[in-house]
Amino acid sequence: MVLKDLFFNTESTEIFVNREDINNFLNQAEAAQRVLSTHQGAGHDFLGWESLPSDIEDWTLQRIQNDVQRLSTRCEVFVVIGIGGSYLGARAVIEALQSELSHLIPHGGHPLVLYAGHTLDEDYYAQLLSVLDSHDYGVAVISKSGTTTEPAVAFRIIKHHLEQKYGKDEAQQRIIAITDAHKGALHTIAEQEHYTSYVIPDNVGGRFSVLTPVGLLPIAMAGYNITKLIEGARHAQHIYRNSPAGGNAALQYAAYRNALYNKGFKVEMLTNFTPALRYFSEWWKQLYGESEGKEGKGILPHSLSFTTDLHSMGQYMQEGERHIMETVISIAKGKQHVGIPMDNQNLDGINYLVTKSLTEINHCAEQGTIEAHRDGGVPVMRIELPILNEYTLGQLIYFCEYACGISGYMLGVNPFNQPGVEAYKKNMFRLLGKE
Amino acid sequence: MVLKDLFFNTESTEIFVNREDINNFLNQAEAAQRVLSTHQGAGHDFLGWESLPSDIEDWTLQRIQNDVQRLSTRCEVFVVIGIGGSYLGARAVIEALQSELSHLIPHGGHPLVLYAGHTLDEDYYAQLLSVLDSHDYGVAVISKSGTTTEPAVAFRIIKHHLEQKYGKDEAQQRIIAITDAHKGALHTIAEQEHYTSYVIPDNVGGRFSVLTPVGLLPIAMAGYNITKLIEGARHAQHIYRNSPAGGNAALQYAAYRNALYNKGFKVEMLTNFTPALRYFSEWWKQLYGESEGKEGKGILPHSLSFTTDLHSMGQYMQEGERHIMETVISIAKGKQHVGIPMDNQNLDGINYLVTKSLTEINHCAEQGTIEAHRDGGVPVMRIELPILNEYTLGQLIYFCEYACGISGYMLGVNPFNQPGVEAYKKNMFRLLGKE
Repeated sequence: MVLKDLFFNTESTEIFVNREDINNFLNQAEAAQRVLSTHQGAGHDFLGWESLPSDIEDWTLQRIQNDVQRLSTRCEVFVVIGIGGSYLGARAVIEALQSELSHLIPHGGHPLVLYAGHTLDEDYYAQLLSVLDSHDYGVAVISKSGTTTEPAVAFRIIKHHLEQKYGKDEAQQRIIAITDAHKGALHTIAEQEHYTSYVIPDNVGGRFSVLTPVGLLPIAMAGYNITKLIEGARHAQHIYRNSPAGGNAALQYAAYRNALYNKGFKVEMLTNFTPALRYFSEWWKQLYGESEGKEGKGILPHSLSFTTDLHSMGQYMQEGERHIMETVISIAKGKQHVGIPMDNQNLDGINYLVTKSLTEINHCAEQGTIEAHRDGGVPVMRIELPILNEYTLGQLIYFCEYACGISGYMLGVNPFNQPGVEAYKKNMFRLLGKE
Repeated sequence: MVLKDLFFNTESTEIFVNREDINNFLNQAEAAQRVLSTHQGAGHDFLGWESLPSDIEDWTLQRIQNDVQRLSTRCEVFVVIGIGGSYLGARAVIEALQSELSHLIPHGGHPLVLYAGHTLDEDYYAQLLSVLDSHDYGVAVISKSGTTTEPAVAFRIIKHHLEQKYGKDEAQQRIIAITDAHKGALHTIAEQEHYTSYVIPDNVGGRFSVLTPVGLLPIAMAGYNITKLIEGARHAQHIYRNSPAGGNAALQYAAYRNALYNKGFKVEMLTNFTPALRYFSEWWKQLYGESEGKEGKGILPHSLSFTTDLHSMGQYMQEGERHIMETVISIAKGKQHVGIPMDNQNLDGINYLVTKSLTEINHCAEQGTIEAHRDGGVPVMRIELPILNEYTLGQLIYFCEYACGISGYMLGVNPFNQPGVEAYKKNMFRLLGKE
């Protein structure tokens, strides 16, 4: 089987940046690659993500599979408690693979994954408890510390519900903790209660953690092949860490986005023609926004899903303020086929489409949109994948992570910290009267 | 019953714009109000939305209710086919009222609303047809022309499926057309096939159409009270069309956002602490993006949902490029209660929260976030609603529409056209070989 690699297409940026500029930024990207690989840059204590795909051992994947098998048979629903980096990676992959209506279609043997600890909305928890009243379920609680307010509150509520429903012993069998190896509240609780537990490595930040058990366990629980996901990421790791810019899509992406930012394109619109990628866009927003948005700098991450949003934000994309660059995630092949019926009257005028598949029509929309946006003053980059599956998602994840590390160094920030996240918490604790 | 009005709070903008500037923009807003009310501005043929709440007649609402009653008894699922303004308004209101997990909870007597015609994704239609195979369903097809590619394709596919499933006669009973009064492909099809049909007024553009049958029929089908929705909008219409800026939240919102845009804040982040508002944000993006994004101008609409996104885009909001203004939709009261259990060990350190409701904690997060963002260089406006229900959503919708008309005139564009939307279609048709 030949697996086509992820391809980075820059055709529709060429009228916006000249060759000399680009070469300059490609050189900078290679310099950042050296800083990254020699662990000499800012935040070098958090570079564990770089070698996760090759470091992960088969027995860890097997252990996850065993837990999935054990719990799948007794759970209709599986609640994943986490926020930010302990939430978005798993959801990005699961929703990319299962599509929007999967909860209405019987699925073979795997629980429906629901989320908690990512919100403080009281009505959401009331509804969630009502679902859990009437379904058998299990829980993964994911937190480095165990004291972050949102997941801590959610875990208390759900643990209490689970123990009421099944008794303490059975509840313990239905909970998996993913947390620090040695310290923290969740680590202590997991030890006391003998939960099955997995480790979040010290040197991997939340937004780079999807290829640890943080992402892998929920993804496997939803029924997807984490071995293939890791294989795709491993392939990407091999290319992006070792190749010079000419053969390195990640370095190219980092170089082009910085070159465009430098020309005043301050917003990056991640777009797709595959609505299942919606949470992938959310994961990408955290990855880039949290890594680069500091010291008054950084490209603002934004996202749209086409063609639906061409009928809402399309006008702005075409003719609004010219401060937007666009990055399209393009998927060559769909999975299923739906025919368009012939109609003899042809009042709607679409008989010319019946020999085409929806995917072909969607691709013409994509190509037409890229041309229109480019002609309207939006530079467009395109990340091309042959199909959307575990392998290509693994590639894409590592591609985004590696390009992000490079891009952050090029911008001159520490891409691996997040000092600004504490500001609202400090105010919130004061208002809540926390001592 | 005292119904508290929508309140527009500008406390956290004061350090960014001085009083003189604001007064200047408030005066401009009042001038735009005069242009709007005398129908002397650009796009004055499309001002039908201004008086929709007071124009709509009881018999129209009653007719909708009758169709809802007739179809509710025989449909488990109701498919709404539409895109852009024929899609987002209904979905915004329905999702705001039903919450994310409602499809998993038995709901009393109303069909589950699903969407089509808003995408060209082939896998989505394969899944949708599989759902329709196993559920009784009906359809509303919403299109002014009947020839827009996405809804036309969806309607062909679903009409064919419906006729196969129920036979032609029964299928005709299960389809409602919402379209032009006199012309267009869908109008002709609806006449030929004797569909129940409703009119989209000529003088109301898509993004302003939620208070016509375009929005009202799907909202009523989902089980929500459209009389209350109209009452809220009517109340808002009375205030915003007649009051000077001092007592007019819509004029104030238009004035502040233009004053801030003028100071270099080129992005408006619509945020909430109520995840059910997600599709409301999508509706708002179309409204403002399509109305203002033209001639190289316009504030870029963006949105986040907190607290979840404080753990992803929070870093950027706090410390990234300072080009963002924020508008928080703040909901004072939740609907349901969930207690946080006491824990004697208190390893997670949240025992201090058990006497508080989640809604109170969420409000402290909101207040803490507003202060943190303001202190970090983001001017924050706040739109305050007492509760989230049909009445307040009606108010909020009209508030946004009225402020949008005013704001577009202040910016110096025609807020009621969308010339840029055709650009991608032209390319797409060429690539598809359309003659």
